[in-house]
This record gives sequence, structure tokens and C-alpha cells, in this order.
Amino acid sequence: MSEQRLREGARAFAEKVFNDIREFSKDPVRGISRQGYGPLENQAHEYLKNIARELNLEIKVDRCGNLFLTLPGKDRSLPCYMTGSHADSVPQGGHYDGLAGVVAAITTLWWMRKIGFEPQRDVTMVVFRMEESSWFGKAYVGSLAMAGQLTAEDLALKHRSKDQTLAEAVREAGFNPEDMVRTDPAIDFSKIAAFTELHIEQGPTLDSQKKARVGIVTGIRGNLRHKTCRCIGVTAHSGAVDKQYRHDAVLAMSDLLMKMERHWAEWLVRGEDLVFTVGVFNTAPSAAIAIIPGEVSFSVDMRSLSMDTLDRFHKLLVAEANATGADRGVTFEFDRTLVCKAADVDPELFEHLKAAAKKADIEVMDIPSGAGHDSAVMADMGVPITMIFVANQDGSHNWKEKMKLDDFMLGTEVLFTAISTYDD
Amino acid sequence: MSEQRLREGARAFAEKVFNDIREFSKDPVRGISRQGYGPLENQAHEYLKNIARELNLEIKVDRCGNLFLTLPGKDRSLPCYMTGSHADSVPQGGHYDGLAGVVAAITTLWWMRKIGFEPQRDVTMVVFRMEESSWFGKAYVGSLAMAGQLTAEDLALKHRSKDQTLAEAVREAGFNPEDMVRTDPAIDFSKIAAFTELHIEQGPTLDSQKKARVGIVTGIRGNLRHKTCRCIGVTAHSGAVDKQYRHDAVLAMSDLLMKMERHWAEWLVRGEDLVFTVGVFNTAPSAAIAIIPGEVSFSVDMRSLSMDTLDRFHKLLVAEANATGADRGVTFEFDRTLVCKAADVDPELFEHLKAAAKKADIEVMDIPSGAGHDSAVMADMGVPITMIFVANQDGSHNWKEKMKLDDFMLGTEVLFTAISTYDD
Repeated sequence: MSEQRLREGARAFAEKVFNDIREFSKDPVRGISRQGYGPLENQAHEYLKNIARELNLEIKVDRCGNLFLTLPGKDRSLPCYMTGSHADSVPQGGHYDGLAGVVAAITTLWWMRKIGFEPQRDVTMVVFRMEESSWFGKAYVGSLAMAGQLTAEDLALKHRSKDQTLAEAVREAGFNPEDMVRTDPAIDFSKIAAFTELHIEQGPTLDSQKKARVGIVTGIRGNLRHKTCRCIGVTAHSGAVDKQYRHDAVLAMSDLLMKMERHWAEWLVRGEDLVFTVGVFNTAPSAAIAIIPGEVSFSVDMRSLSMDTLDRFHKLLVAEANATGADRGVTFEFDRTLVCKAADVDPELFEHLKAAAKKADIEVMDIPSGAGHDSAVMADMGVPITMIFVANQDGSHNWKEKMKLDDFMLGTEVLFTAISTYDD
Repeated sequence: MSEQRLREGARAFAEKVFNDIREFSKDPVRGISRQGYGPLENQAHEYLKNIARELNLEIKVDRCGNLFLTLPGKDRSLPCYMTGSHADSVPQGGHYDGLAGVVAAITTLWWMRKIGFEPQRDVTMVVFRMEESSWFGKAYVGSLAMAGQLTAEDLALKHRSKDQTLAEAVREAGFNPEDMVRTDPAIDFSKIAAFTELHIEQGPTLDSQKKARVGIVTGIRGNLRHKTCRCIGVTAHSGAVDKQYRHDAVLAMSDLLMKMERHWAEWLVRGEDLVFTVGVFNTAPSAAIAIIPGEVSFSVDMRSLSMDTLDRFHKLLVAEANATGADRGVTFEFDRTLVCKAADVDPELFEHLKAAAKKADIEVMDIPSGAGHDSAVMADMGVPITMIFVANQDGSHNWKEKMKLDDFMLGTEVLFTAISTYDD
């Protein structure tokens, strides 16, 4: 088979897998709804097991429901090369977040079988359970449980819209909630030499490139968050109280945000990695057109590859809030600070992926991961990780997300090349 | 009955009316919620009709639901002296905005009955429907409808929190929406010789006075409003999209508001009368901590004694919104501009009130009205108007508003004296 025919075959295989899974995952309203530990995630896992049987791969499921499909290596005592992602989606989400990494992995294995490639070490594809936090409020449930890091508190979380706990969902999916909160890892992480997750880029950077439609991830941003903060001013009549007597919470918030935006721009100029978002900004339920607003509630999300940057920007936010409060006669109240650590990629593996891309003659660019991924859990467990990003359109976590199959195949070929040349 | 006993009796009567109406108007969360054309406003009107029956007053309701209670004068062909205010409140509002003028009017009639006073002309108390704009975004609905100035567009306005139009609320209250938008006035305004509305002051000026706890109003600010405008940006992942790719609606709004605040301060320095308020500012219901906000809805309220100032500041707002939108890749959408004209008080009636206060030996001060009132509609219909303000604590349009009954009785005595000496 010519290399061209082979590529076309891989493309057709990937397309069929995408289409088959899309077919049974459609949300009645719009987009894709494949809840973690829900019936459609189960169906996706069963579908992949069927392919694995056709490709004669080893099939394993850990006690948390994560799926492992292995192409055995020549030396089975060596730690494996692992690749994969998650098969769940956000509610009314798109078709590619998570699934792209799953399809890239199975396509890689298909490709290896097709050319009769025998790897030196096991190549294992993983399909993580429930990566998305939208359903129960907790991210990386499958990989955290596998790492022995899920808690009973997590299992008690409630479904976003129905009267069901995470524990109940796990049980319904056919697994034992008690197994999910064991503190010993469900797999031997020391038996993983390298982990590479392919994922759609969730921002516009790659899609705005003409040449590099694939990115090699430089690190996974950590985040520092506040769920619900408040700015408290003084409610008063909008017509009867003149400017000098006002303590307007909306104007105070606006003032603070413009100050932080200016700092943010300066920090970027001096080379810090940082994004800053106030995603929720609401006046009180009793707010009205003719009332000077006396209360605003708001969220804070800041992310960086550097936890030190986050710590310093957070301190600056609190200091500016205090100064703005003193200036305008309002008070800012910050709730509990929530922190997710940044994850480093493995420098050697990073260089290996860049070399693989060069070998495959595919242009790539360095890119940070703004979003978190199961890869971060793997890194935290001491596994050397890298990620491959593929350009996508219209963002992610929404039903409009698009990805060009051509871009996907470029990313998949980088993945295939990186794994197949790992022991060269 | 001694004058002292009489005053104590009037005070006790007023206190009972305040307490009775408070009892059935409590909001489940806090303060008072008496929506215009809602069940509790209806209940207040029924309560007042019962008192009117006890005092043997004539009872009339116009086609818009405004209530008129008349103590007949000796010469019924003369145009009446009218007093009164509105019985609705803002959501979770205080007990005195509107209601103070209603209670002052009924107490004045009680007082006249008590001393057997026979006025030369009819003394008519009016209870306007729905003065507050907080519920449907339109102020003075009752008095405007009465003046033949309400439009079908107004009736189509939506309730702030439920799926109901103003027309539907009017129908539910027992009135015909078609009658509300007739262009002929519901009453003969030429049959009103004078109109005086007592109201709590909605700013801090009178309450900071030691002697003058009552004010005679010099003019009423007009307002220009938007009920629900929108800033539309682009929703995206808060971690994956870098600063230069963002179209953050919250930051765009904050930018616009800081620009307008700077203009406002400059306009005040050059002597313009102006207040500017964005009382409602909400991200979309689907907003979340990890999503760059793609939509903000907000209200606008600006007020001035000069309609020209409002017109120019509004033009500046739209121009700055367009510039900010172009700068940040967002769009601002302004809904219909709602305008309430500023109103002059009648100079002769103003002097009559000052004289009445002097006669009653009650210290008063001149004060402008920052808030709008039904009085402005009356003035617009050619009725000579004045207003009496009473000191109050903790502002208005909020559940904390307080008023001392002693201050209220001083204002009521000015009102009683002004009406009872009008034909002397």
C-alpha cells in the first residue's frame, strides 16, 4: 500500500469513528451530550472495545472504568507509551473536545496494525472517564480516581440538573463507588514511560496560523480562582443622590477591572504568561433601573504556566480592590481561593515530539495549554507528558466547535510518528 | 377637642394606616414589594376605599385604576385642590416612598372631617397606579395613562422577572389594557386648580438639617432611560484564549462606564445638573467562572433638571459605546429610549405653600427634586403643581428606608394648612 493510500485509509477510518460516535451522542436540543459515567459514554467505550477486538488489541478496564487498549510491544517488561483522552463531553457540547484524542489514539493503533508495525514497548491507548466538570462540578474524575485522589466529598457532588449524586451515576454505569475513592492508584504509573494526549486547541491561536495547524504544548496552565466574590457599596435612589454621595458598586467594579486590565497588559509586555477573566458579574436580584447599585457578585479566574505569576497577580488584585474600596467607600469581599497547579511537560519528550513533527514534515508551533487536561493528573503522578494541539474553529465547550479532518490527520501523524520512533 | 389632642389623633390615625398597609405588603425576603397593577397594590386601594367609606368621601376610579377620594366643597363647580401620590413600591423597597403622600392625603381628609371643615372647593385625594419603573421599566404608568400618554409599546414591556407583559398585569388587576392607551385624558385636568404631592426626600439633604425637616420643592429632574441594553462580545474558554483574541463583554462595559464617569465629573465641574446610573449589570444566565463573558445586559438611567443636558449626555454615551465597541470588537445594543420630562413648579402655589408653612409655624427649606414623580405628569398636563418633601433616613427605593413620624406629621400639617387656606 502506498503511503498516500495509507493516509487516505487512516483518514477514512478516523472519519468513520467520529461519525459513528456522533450518531448515538446527539443531544435532543443541539450538539453532543455524552455525560461521564452516563449511558452514552458507556456506549462509546463499548464501541471502542469492538474496534479493539477487530484490531486484536488487549482490552483492560480499571476499577474506575477507564479503558486501556494495548498493542503489545516486543519487550513487554518495558514501561509503555500511553496516549489517549476522554470520551465524555460537556452538556450540549461539541464533537471534538476529548474525542479527538481518543480517535487519534485508535487511528494510530489502526495505522500500526495496517503496516504491521511491531513497537519495542507496549503502546497503550487510554480512554479516561468523566473529564468534564460541567456535570457534577468536578473535573478529571476518571483520572483522579485512577490516581487514588478522588474523595468521598467528590462522590457526594450533585448532578447539575437531576437528583443524582456522582456515586449514584458511577454505580449506574456499572462500577463501585467505593473503588473510586481508594487511595492506592488503580494502575502502576511507573509502568508508563511517556504519555501524549492529542486535543483540539480551545483557543483561536492555531486556527489563525496559515502553516502550523498543529501545536506542541509547552505546559498546562494552572489556575487561581474565586467562585463568588462581592463588591458592597450603598444602595440609593438613582435620581436623588448626587455623584459625591454615591458608593456605586458597579462603577467601583468597573474601576477595579480597568486597573487590572492595564496591569495585565503590562505583565504580558514584560513576558509573563497570564489570562484574567471575570466571567460572572451580577448586580443583586433586587437591583433596578432607578437604584444606585449597592452590590455586585463576581467570579475570578486567572491562569498562567507559572504559579508564581498567579500568586503575584492575585496579591495585586486584592491590593487594588482595597485601594479602590477606600477610594470609593465600598468594600470587596473575596471568597476562598481555589488553586489548580500548573503542569510541566517533559523537556525530552517535548523535543522528541518536535523531532517527530520534523520527520513527518509537519509544521508545528509551541503553544501553552490554557485549559486543564487529564495530562495534568498524569504529570502529577510523575509520568513524563506532552500534548499535541490541533487547530479548531468556534472555540470549545460549545455545540459549534468544529475541527478540520485534515488538521486532525496532521496532528495524528505527529502522534503516530512520535510513538513509532520513540525507541529508535 | 384641643389642638394638641387633634394632632395626636391625626398622628395615631396616620400610624395605623402605615402599619395596616405594611402588614400585608411584606416581601418574603425583606422590605416591601407592592407591584403596580399587582394584588397588593389592589389591596392597598381597597383598604383606602374602606377608610373613605368611614369618612363619607366620594369614591371614584378612573378607567386606568387610579383612585380618587373627594371631600366635596361648598362650590362644586370650582376646580378642585388635589393631593396624593402612588401606593406601589419598588421590589423589596421601603415603606414610605409613595405611601407617605397617600397617608398624608388621607390624614388631611381625616383631619378636615374631624374638625368639620367645609372647603370652598372639592379636596380630592388621588392614589396613582404604578409609579415605579422597576417592575416593567416604565415610570408613571398610572398617571401617564390617565393623561392619555401611555402607548401600546409601553403595554408590551416585559416584567422584570416573570413572563408577563404590562398589558397582562393590567388585565389581571381588573382593568382593560385598551383603556390604558386611549389618547384622550381619563379625567378633566382643567378641573384641577392645584396639585400638591407630599413625598419623602430621597436624598440626604433634609435629614442632615436640624431645623427644617420639611422641604418645598423648586423643580423636578427629568430622566432619560434604557431598560435593557446589551453588550455582545464573544464567549470563549477562559484559559485557552489569550488577551489579544478576546472580546470580553464585561471588560468592554467597564471601559465604557469609566469613560462615562469621567465625562460626568467634567460636566458637573462646568455646572451641568446630572446624575448617571447603571443600576442593573448582569452577565448571561449561561455565564460561568471558566468562560470569557460574551454578553452583558444593563440598564441606563440619567437625570437632570435640563432635558438638553440629558439629550447631549445620551448622544455622548452612544458615541462612546460605538467607539468602545469598535476598539474591542464588541457591539452595544441600546433598546428604546424612555424619556420623562423635567417639570417646573408653579411659582404662586410655591409661595402659597411657604406661607402655609409659616402660618403653621413649621420651618421649611427650598429643595430640588432629584427623583421624578407623578407630579411631573400633572405639570405636563398644565396643572399648577408643588411638592412637599419630608426628611427620611437611609435613602429610598430600598428596604431600609426610614422616616420619623414626627417629621411626617410636620409635612402633613403644611399640606393640611396649604389646602385649608387655599381659598382664604
